[in-house]
Amino acid sequence: MNRESLIQQINTKSSFLCVGLDTDPNLIPEHLKNHPDGVFEFNKAIIDATKDFCVSYKINTAFFEAMGSKGWEIMERTFAYIPDNILKIADAKRGDIGNTSNQYARAFFESLGADCVTLAPYMGKDSLDTFFKYPDKWGIVLALTSNPGSADFEQQKLESGEFLYQSVISEMCKIGSADNLMFVVGATKPQEFREIRKSAPNHFLLVPGVGAQGGSLSEVCENGLIQDIGLLINASRSIIYAGKDENFAQKAQDEARKIQAEMAEILAKRA
Amino acid sequence: MNRESLIQQINTKSSFLCVGLDTDPNLIPEHLKNHPDGVFEFNKAIIDATKDFCVSYKINTAFFEAMGSKGWEIMERTFAYIPDNILKIADAKRGDIGNTSNQYARAFFESLGADCVTLAPYMGKDSLDTFFKYPDKWGIVLALTSNPGSADFEQQKLESGEFLYQSVISEMCKIGSADNLMFVVGATKPQEFREIRKSAPNHFLLVPGVGAQGGSLSEVCENGLIQDIGLLINASRSIIYAGKDENFAQKAQDEARKIQAEMAEILAKRA
Repeated sequence: MNRESLIQQINTKSSFLCVGLDTDPNLIPEHLKNHPDGVFEFNKAIIDATKDFCVSYKINTAFFEAMGSKGWEIMERTFAYIPDNILKIADAKRGDIGNTSNQYARAFFESLGADCVTLAPYMGKDSLDTFFKYPDKWGIVLALTSNPGSADFEQQKLESGEFLYQSVISEMCKIGSADNLMFVVGATKPQEFREIRKSAPNHFLLVPGVGAQGGSLSEVCENGLIQDIGLLINASRSIIYAGKDENFAQKAQDEARKIQAEMAEILAKRA
Repeated sequence: MNRESLIQQINTKSSFLCVGLDTDPNLIPEHLKNHPDGVFEFNKAIIDATKDFCVSYKINTAFFEAMGSKGWEIMERTFAYIPDNILKIADAKRGDIGNTSNQYARAFFESLGADCVTLAPYMGKDSLDTFFKYPDKWGIVLALTSNPGSADFEQQKLESGEFLYQSVISEMCKIGSADNLMFVVGATKPQEFREIRKSAPNHFLLVPGVGAQGGSLSEVCENGLIQDIGLLINASRSIIYAGKDENFAQKAQDEARKIQAEMAEILAKRA
């Protein structure tokens, strides 16, 4: 999906919500735990219930890998089930030397059909540039994450005076553009969004940490929204585990709708 | 596998070679390309041919993920096929927030039965600490990699005066010990091994970059060997693709034996 289509979807739905599918077989409702294809049925019901209120799904590969090849197969079917007008993100945090990253790009863009894959920048530009060579596909590079450990390296100051995450943003802008490169910036760091907008004024930012991790939607929007929106706000657990019984899909929809309504209000105010 | 067993294996075989299984279905011999289970048959033949000359296999997850769920299933069977007295490394370069990293640890240590998984440190200590809570399992953290892009961030100097990769080593030593933490250090950086040994005097280092990437075994050993050996030297393409025909396993064995002989000589000299 290209940038224009993404923005169009956001405007059509008045939503820039990304629903995170961190599907844990131990946390799905009881009646699905006993279903032979319970994890896929859960994903399917969540997608059916929330697809009118979000513009993206983020599939957390770890949860599927933990189920082995069966889990990878469920992930394949889940990607295939997501409607094509919704941005499909593989949250995989990959990154390796060139000939290995080529294989990851094939895994996510070709085999799974994802539109985007999240990437870890530690090994440098040449470890990620292959992901920016696919038309209408996106690399989403970790910049400033929502966990306390972001203080260990991401927020360390370099000799140059900038923080590591700022250097990551400026270096990655040399291999990707606002049309195929996004950054992960945690919602728990709203005050940093203004600074980040100086180096990435037009890039979309994928923002986890609203909901279960305690970030505030309004604060993030206040500091991060741009003319072309430029934000995808992810919520995972607070939506998909909103209900614990047979009503789980309805509860997930209610939660997604609530966030979408907040987003619609924010978008209306700035129009 | 614990440290004591690993060292014992190294001494028994006079080898600290790790064979990297970067199995690309396009690069296996013609007769296996037409085999219904050719990739697994290739891995099996390489393992049978090289297992007496190496102490570890490193399975590069990207190459299997690129084949989809079928590839993950081949990876499962490959891990299961490796004899238990050989260290099984999942070269996956994972790392994420805690509840996601828990799932990766389950995927690699529990579901696949790997002894070690390679980890990307960008998100900080709390993104990786779960990997150090499994008895007799190892986390192998990226420190200084063999690719040119290591200059972008890994070799950037922090305000504190140390390079980022040095800070990664010292921070990670707070959550792991020489019994469950290794570091990836590229063979293309032999002169850095002495410096690294100051902060990680007893840790095993996993060293890619000998062979196809041009690093020198003797230089690495000169600067990185310790009393307990402390090195696992990886070679992938130069071994597994040494032959292109039906003789590929024999050629791989010849190549592995050659490196093992060099290692035996190095070990004998220091005895």
